Amino acid sequence: MDLLIAGGTVVTMDDEYRVVEGGSLAVEGARIVSVLEPGAALPEAAERIDASGMLVIPGLINTHGHVPMALMRGLADDMKLMEWLNEFIFPAEARNVDEEFSYWGTLLGSIEMARSGTTTFTDMYYFEDAIAKAADEAGLRAVLGSSIIGFPAPDFKTTDEALRAAEAFVVKWKGHSRIVPSVAPHALYTTDIEVVAKARELSRRYQVPFQMHAHEAQQEDEVVRAKYGETAVTLLEERGLLGPGMILHHAITLTDTDIALLAERGVAVSHNPESNMKGASGLARVPDLLARGVTVGLGTDGPASNNNLDMFEEMDTAAKVHKLFRSDPTVMPAREVFRMATRGGAKALGLDSLVGSLEVGKRADVVLIDLNQPELTPMYDVYSHLVYAIKGAHVRTVVIDGRVVVRDRRMTTLDEQAVMEKAREIQNRILASLK
Amino acid sequence: MDLLIAGGTVVTMDDEYRVVEGGSLAVEGARIVSVLEPGAALPEAAERIDASGMLVIPGLINTHGHVPMALMRGLADDMKLMEWLNEFIFPAEARNVDEEFSYWGTLLGSIEMARSGTTTFTDMYYFEDAIAKAADEAGLRAVLGSSIIGFPAPDFKTTDEALRAAEAFVVKWKGHSRIVPSVAPHALYTTDIEVVAKARELSRRYQVPFQMHAHEAQQEDEVVRAKYGETAVTLLEERGLLGPGMILHHAITLTDTDIALLAERGVAVSHNPESNMKGASGLARVPDLLARGVTVGLGTDGPASNNNLDMFEEMDTAAKVHKLFRSDPTVMPAREVFRMATRGGAKALGLDSLVGSLEVGKRADVVLIDLNQPELTPMYDVYSHLVYAIKGAHVRTVVIDGRVVVRDRRMTTLDEQAVMEKAREIQNRILASLK
Repeated sequence: MDLLIAGGTVVTMDDEYRVVEGGSLAVEGARIVSVLEPGAALPEAAERIDASGMLVIPGLINTHGHVPMALMRGLADDMKLMEWLNEFIFPAEARNVDEEFSYWGTLLGSIEMARSGTTTFTDMYYFEDAIAKAADEAGLRAVLGSSIIGFPAPDFKTTDEALRAAEAFVVKWKGHSRIVPSVAPHALYTTDIEVVAKARELSRRYQVPFQMHAHEAQQEDEVVRAKYGETAVTLLEERGLLGPGMILHHAITLTDTDIALLAERGVAVSHNPESNMKGASGLARVPDLLARGVTVGLGTDGPASNNNLDMFEEMDTAAKVHKLFRSDPTVMPAREVFRMATRGGAKALGLDSLVGSLEVGKRADVVLIDLNQPELTPMYDVYSHLVYAIKGAHVRTVVIDGRVVVRDRRMTTLDEQAVMEKAREIQNRILASLK
Repeated sequence: MDLLIAGGTVVTMDDEYRVVEGGSLAVEGARIVSVLEPGAALPEAAERIDASGMLVIPGLINTHGHVPMALMRGLADDMKLMEWLNEFIFPAEARNVDEEFSYWGTLLGSIEMARSGTTTFTDMYYFEDAIAKAADEAGLRAVLGSSIIGFPAPDFKTTDEALRAAEAFVVKWKGHSRIVPSVAPHALYTTDIEVVAKARELSRRYQVPFQMHAHEAQQEDEVVRAKYGETAVTLLEERGLLGPGMILHHAITLTDTDIALLAERGVAVSHNPESNMKGASGLARVPDLLARGVTVGLGTDGPASNNNLDMFEEMDTAAKVHKLFRSDPTVMPAREVFRMATRGGAKALGLDSLVGSLEVGKRADVVLIDLNQPELTPMYDVYSHLVYAIKGAHVRTVVIDGRVVVRDRRMTTLDEQAVMEKAREIQNRILASLK
């Protein structure tokens, strides 16, 4: 046995929502080979992690983000979207985003994600190959797509170039044990439907996930309606593009017809409440989506829109904001929200056979949470604690694909101080470029 | 000099919102005696804290809570208020709340609050004298009131008893350097207006703060209207009870007339967005209150309703949820929200001459935040970081009334492990009592 995680409160998230008090996990290579009851004989293992006084949970799955934007967190806030984009984000990106930016920004964001319990993240940004390289080095699992957008971007000037690069990216990374390539057109308000159709064809040909922003705000809907006379979802349906292996980010302004179509076609949604609140974009109809059987994952969006990558924060907010909006404290109960951040996300990304629960045969993506903290004592209910009380900083140890990536709150794969130093250097360049 | 906090980024929250890079604070006894610019000669001091790479901020002020309920955090969630109260909270309280419960629950909550940067908290619960003793021992500043409620409570069976005890509590603690006694009738839907009037008279006679729940939910309003034919605020106005030195908790369902009355009479409001969201009670009209000049502080409410006492979480949520509700990303900008959690809270509690900013003559309630963290690097704007990115766990050192209460994330005043052990023991009693 390579790794034994011994004697914790194991929250399996299996079909029976089994919680094993004093349970253990045995790992061989990248996989969980047994979930042991208390009292079971524990196998010898090359490495043994003591999980007593710890919660042992499946790694969290972040279904949407633009991770390198960690380098621009807090550059501008509290303003209208167009002002934020046109006066700050777009100029800063045009003048600064290059391979180095995406690489170091991803290392930086990966530390934050891993240390707050996220083991799988999703990204679409620029210079995605550098992002994949960084995610791989950091040791995280990631679903990554090279952005295809209908205007000149920092990496590619035309959609033809971007489509070719997207294909090359998929070919290069397909088969990697943790890096899952995907196809990622930006959105229908920025990118023509013909380009989106080509991207969808690419994702189908290579059988990789397809991700896109859709129904992110009222203003976007207006652009799509003005150009095509319908909603993004009905347009995608009409062109035969909806189907499994597809995740739509935000999905706020859905009509009942849109929701029925997503359910029928097996399309998943990434719900990003904190970003949507901060940007005043609206709130996705998650209780309706869940009631119709649509798979929903949680996501933070980019760290410049949130401004953190902590999925515990996202769960807490998701559970609370829908209660307020529906005037009903029973909607989005804690266990359902935790499911969304684990199994829900895994299914939304097409990774449910690999991750999302602690079960024999799945990859060992495991997070240990230190319960011996005043603010977590006493504990009555694991799911209530996971959603309402536990925060990213309570994470102590993180295992991804069977490898210890965070030990006692420190990354084992990266030099955190060196990454921070580089981040400050890039910040200085960004500030100088905006003068 | 007793204490020197040397060489940090000092966020003064003075009238000019001055931020001193490389600034220092000199403390003599309980007071700040100088705010030093970088390069200034630093005085000798008995203790010197190196603040390089740290943000130095005024301690956060939590304006509403029931702190001992930390012992019941997560006992029940995600249900209708009446079910939550009648089937879980009230029976658990009736069978378990005694002096010991309030004392240890307060120690437990005080650790959480201090370690997440709160230096002043507000409480109304049962056996308040035990709460005052615990808060004093923990070293926090606190505005405390012995609950006066119109039904038999764990400590006092009648409102006459409760009023007499409230007066004794005020007499006992008035003049203490950190414990500020207040008068705390529960609410108008639970407590008769004649009793509330007597409580108000008491607070005026002793010149101590008056705190009460008001306009906490639609259902409460209906009870008040059915009994008195008007809103809580108009009823209080009619009886001549509104005025300075008064803070109303929640204040969600205010009419325009109510808001105008609060502004005119100098009554403050405690805003508790996370508890209100989790309970699906509604959202206070904070932008309107601020626009009319009403003083607003932030509060967490009890840890069984939230479920944490972390004011950084509360700031983040407050900033975001109003943007969503108003469909306007410019409302509740970060600096205004941070002001609410510091100067706003201080003013709301009548403590603005003592705390809420880092200025000469004020008490040294100071919090140091470690910026050398991947998720806080780089930093562009202190207020954006304070509200959207910094969390309680980033707090390293806390000074209250000139005394170091948290050093390197550890309480100096309490044995944290012993408090947790006692908390688990009380939990077992609670669980047994509910069988």
